Formats: sequence, structure tokens, C-alpha cells
Amino acid sequence: MAEPQYVALDAMGGDFGPSIVVPGAALALEKHPSLQFLIFGEQTAIERQLEDHPALAARSLVRHTDSVIASDAKPSQALRRGKGTSMWQAIEAVRDNEAAFAVSAGNTGALMAVSRLILRTLPGIDRPALAGQWPTIHRPSIVLDVGANIGASARELCHFALMGAAMARSIFGVERPTVGLLNVGTEEIKGADEVKQAHAWLRDVQLSFDYRGYIEGDKIGQGIVDVVVCEGFTGNIALKTAEGTAKQIATYLREAMTSSLLSKAGALLASGGFKILKQRSDPRRSNGGTFLGLNGIAIKSHGGTDAYGFASAIEVGYGMAASGIIERLTGDLAALQSKLESIATAAAAEADMDKTASAG
Amino acid sequence: MAEPQYVALDAMGGDFGPSIVVPGAALALEKHPSLQFLIFGEQTAIERQLEDHPALAARSLVRHTDSVIASDAKPSQALRRGKGTSMWQAIEAVRDNEAAFAVSAGNTGALMAVSRLILRTLPGIDRPALAGQWPTIHRPSIVLDVGANIGASARELCHFALMGAAMARSIFGVERPTVGLLNVGTEEIKGADEVKQAHAWLRDVQLSFDYRGYIEGDKIGQGIVDVVVCEGFTGNIALKTAEGTAKQIATYLREAMTSSLLSKAGALLASGGFKILKQRSDPRRSNGGTFLGLNGIAIKSHGGTDAYGFASAIEVGYGMAASGIIERLTGDLAALQSKLESIATAAAAEADMDKTASAG
Repeated sequence: MAEPQYVALDAMGGDFGPSIVVPGAALALEKHPSLQFLIFGEQTAIERQLEDHPALAARSLVRHTDSVIASDAKPSQALRRGKGTSMWQAIEAVRDNEAAFAVSAGNTGALMAVSRLILRTLPGIDRPALAGQWPTIHRPSIVLDVGANIGASARELCHFALMGAAMARSIFGVERPTVGLLNVGTEEIKGADEVKQAHAWLRDVQLSFDYRGYIEGDKIGQGIVDVVVCEGFTGNIALKTAEGTAKQIATYLREAMTSSLLSKAGALLASGGFKILKQRSDPRRSNGGTFLGLNGIAIKSHGGTDAYGFASAIEVGYGMAASGIIERLTGDLAALQSKLESIATAAAAEADMDKTASAG
Repeated sequence: MAEPQYVALDAMGGDFGPSIVVPGAALALEKHPSLQFLIFGEQTAIERQLEDHPALAARSLVRHTDSVIASDAKPSQALRRGKGTSMWQAIEAVRDNEAAFAVSAGNTGALMAVSRLILRTLPGIDRPALAGQWPTIHRPSIVLDVGANIGASARELCHFALMGAAMARSIFGVERPTVGLLNVGTEEIKGADEVKQAHAWLRDVQLSFDYRGYIEGDKIGQGIVDVVVCEGFTGNIALKTAEGTAKQIATYLREAMTSSLLSKAGALLASGGFKILKQRSDPRRSNGGTFLGLNGIAIKSHGGTDAYGFASAIEVGYGMAASGIIERLTGDLAALQSKLESIATAAAAEADMDKTASAG
């Protein structure tokens, strides 16, 4: 695997800008000492942060930008007025092969629009998907699309399967990832034709992953597959619902543990256990969404994360770049495309024969 | 409010049949001593259970049925072969005004199909919705559709809002329930046109509830609205995802609390707190899904619940029947229909005027 060299960072994205981006990069550099950084943003602010991280400063180039994309900018505004901003230039660095990948904690819609415009999509892909890491009782699963688009055709769901598998291969190192298709349990329910069609195709087409069929919402957290495929509206709502439920139970737990002196004492005694619980449910560990289907790697970090979380997002990009995911995906997508076409051709031929038979 | 008299029970549904249905009815009778029961199913098995509940036995009629709808029966099989089963007869008792409502722990798809066939839908409703109670940090919210159908038009989403509000009014006793429409955060994203159209209608039409606009998945568990409206695919996946996340965190918690002797001791000391946690997250407290939009009340209990959970499902039906929900819904639906039509007429007239203006 080729070691990625430069990483492009949008220092101005997210709630805290350079004050988490720079320390986050420093953490990533500790793990991968060969990395170098192109840091885009307000030069003075960035350099002030770099003073505390001399090792990082020695391996970073700061590129000053005057403007930023606001955290509440609409995608269309970002496209119209985003040129020259820190986010825009970070993505351009990927396009121009100056950087192996870019990381931004800026707003999702803007990052998606800008990345798509600058990097373009891979052949056969109309719309990229946003892939998130979903913490499970085993290792995280990749879930996509978690909100880049609303709705997906059967063909797009197949693309998601392929792209999610490529990402799982890159960041978890499994050669043949398992893939599930999110669906509701009731088998005979009408609708979701695109899900059923995707299911049939994924079952029939031999690909570089292990398709395991339908998966229901309550099984995502069990980590029974590496990749969960769904369209973006459902995926976004599922992801947010899981976050909300975790918060809800944390509230219950806090209230329960302060409900009496005895409970308070018990909670204190069990603080080691609670620390483990907190670590296991730590959302920073799985920070780093990725737009898949682009001709280049753009990682979206949570806007409110800290340095540790930002370093996790860099780690995702590192894994993807090191594994050469774009090249492999391009090949895999072409293979899928030709397999789906041969299925279509075979189906058409069969329909023709049926017609001839019934005419004769 | 009129006290519901007879309750029709499908004694053969669910994982445990009469052994939970009968004790569940006994619990409901303790709460509402004026209730009477029509219990459908295997007579001997039911009567054996009734021996332990003489007060209930005195207020119950057992109607023997020979056949049951299997827990894995497809809806179409239930329709073809279901006549005469305990589920079928319980629903017929509602249609024939023998019972104020029916409760079954049988399979959801079958119960939906049978209820729809026998009870028919209310005027203006094509497809009923399945409404579930979602536990939140406040009182439960009503979420619908959680899986009766896949997809919903803008008009159907408005129906769901109205029907969910009627249910909230019935079982929580709030006169003017608050309603939110489930959506993803990114405002400018393309698609979900039916959600946007429903949003515009619900905002403009003055109805018997308080429409609060969009709500994201992470807010459901916060209980910020009484009713959350969504189409059935998304709703089912959100509900299952929340269940799965709760289970996942319970696993984390169990493992964390047994990770060391100290944690074990602390957990023991805090057992009062853990008991509160368990009570607050107890799914039995919010058991009882309802098919809304039918000309009669049919309650679906979880198949795996116990007597306490089954009694909760009876309680839901009791509240709905006592409040005269069907009559009120019929009126509210007619009002909504005429308001939506006047919006459509006004829009058409405006379009006409624009045409005339541009022609002149």
C-alpha cells in the first residue's frame, strides 16, 4: 500500500476551526509520522495553533484563505460564493493531486456540493452517497447513504453496496466485506420496489463482497454486517434516531443513578464500569463520514467534535487513500455495470423468446 | 365519555396465547371493573386460564374457534383462509357492534389485512396506518405510520397527522396535540416532495391540532411533540433502529457493570437506580399499536409481551373507544378534505388569473 503523503485540511470548518483541526492533525501525525499537511484557512489563527505543535508545524504548509463557507450556508450559496474559501481550496488540492485526501468539519450540504463540483463523480455514478460509521457491539459498520440524497434507484442501491464494501475493505481491512440491505420485516408489503429489485440483483451478481440479504433496523447495532445499504432519507433518519435514543437512555441512566444516595454511592463505586460504557459509546471513535462515488477522497468530520474526533476523521481518509480505494472502485463499478447489463440483456432475450413462443 | 362495554380478544395470537391474554384481561378488569370480554379461541385452553381469574370469568363470554392464523402467515393467506379464526371473529365482533374494540397479539400483516377487509376504511382513507407509542423522556409520543404501508402521498401524511392527533387526544387526554413531520435536516436537498407538500398544507390549514413543523430523528426520543408523522418504511426502520440501539446500550451497560468486582459491587448498591432505569425503558408500558383510519378500533399487541403488556394494549383501546375517536375522526377527516379542496380551488383560480393576465 502506498503511504498517503499530503493531507488537505479545511482549518475553518466546524464549530471550533483551527483550535481543533490543528491539534487533531498533530494526533494523526503521531500515528502516521510520514504524513504532511496542507492547511487552508486564516493564516494567523492556524500559526498560533501550530506554535504548540512544532512537529506538526515542521510538516505543514499553511495556505492562507480570506473567506470561509458559513456553517449555515446552503449548498447553492456554497457553489456560488465558495471559490477561494478554505473548504474549496482543500478539495481543489485533492483534484490537483497535491493531496491524497481532504478533511473538513464544515457543513455537510456545502461540502457535498463543492466536492461533487470539483472532484466530479466516478464513471457510472450520478450522485455520490454519504457513508457514515455506525458504532455496533462489534466493530463499526458502514451505513450509506446517510443523507446525501433522498431516494435511490435499484441501480444506485447496488452502487452503494459496492462503494460501502470498498470503504469497509479500506478501513477495516476485511477482504470480502458482508453487506445487508435495509428493509422492513413484513415481506408481502407493497412498495419499495427499488429495494426488492436491488435485492434480486445483489443476490444474482457475483461481486467482491458477500451479500447477506435484508437487514432490519434493530439489527444495525448488532454489527451483523460490515455494510448496511439504504437510501438517504431513511438512512439519515435511522442514524439520527439511533443518536437520539442513545442520548435518551443516557438521560434515563443519569437520572436513575442520582435518584437516591445509595444509587449515587453505587455509581461512584462503579465509575470504572461507567468509564468503559462511555468509551464504548463514544461517538468520536467513529467520526468521519465520506462522500463515496467521487473521483477523489473527501472526509466530513462532525462539526462539534474535538481534536481526538478530528484525528479519527483523518484516520478514515488515511485508510481509504492508502488502500487505493478510488482505483479499485473504478474497476469494480465497471464490472458491476457490465454484469447488470448482461442480466438486462438476458432478461430481454428471454422476454423475446417468450413472445416468439406464444406467437408460435 | 361512554364507557366501552365489551372488549373482543383474540386469545390465540402472540407467542403465548391464552396464558398471557387471559391474565392481561384480568389486569385490565381490575382497572376498569365495568368492562366485559368476548374471548375468541380454543375454549378449553381459555377456560383453564379463567379458573385462576374468577372475577374475569364472571364477566367474560368465551367463543370457541377451531382455527388460528399462524404467526408467519402472509396477509394474503390470512385473507384467504382466515375466516372463522379467533382473530377474524374478534374483528367481526367490532364490525357487528358487539365489542367496542378488539385486541390481538397475532401477526401484524395479517391483522392489518383482516381488519381492513372486515372494518373497511373511513371515508377519504385508502390505506390505514399503523400507529405506535414511542417512549420518550416525557410521556410517549404517537408515531405513524410505523409499517402498515410503504410510501405515503402528501395527502396521506396529512391524514396521518390528523389520525395521530386524534389518538393522542384519546389516550393522553390533551385537547390540542402537537404534531411534527419527520424529515432530514438538510433543507435544500432534492426530493421528498410529498413531505414538503404535506408541510405546506399542514402549516396553512387550521386544524384541531398544533402543527410544529419538521422534526429530525434525534428529537423523537426527546418527546417534543405528541405525534410524529412519517411514511411507513422510514417509520418502521426508525422504530426498529431505536429498539436496536436501546438493546445495544443495554449490552454495553451489562458488560461495563460486570467488568470488575468494584463495578459489580457498585451496580449492586445502585440496584434501586437500575430498577428505575429498567422501569423507564420498559417496552411493556407503551405496548399497543393501532391501525388508524379504519371504521372500528383494532389494537395490535406485541407478540412477545406478557400479561402486563397485554393489559397496556387493552388500555389503549379503552382510551380510544371511551373518547369516541371514530366519530370524531370521521368529522375531522371531512373537514380536512374540504379545506384541502378549497386550497386546490384557490390555487387553480390563481393559476387561471395568471394565465388571463399574461394573455391580456
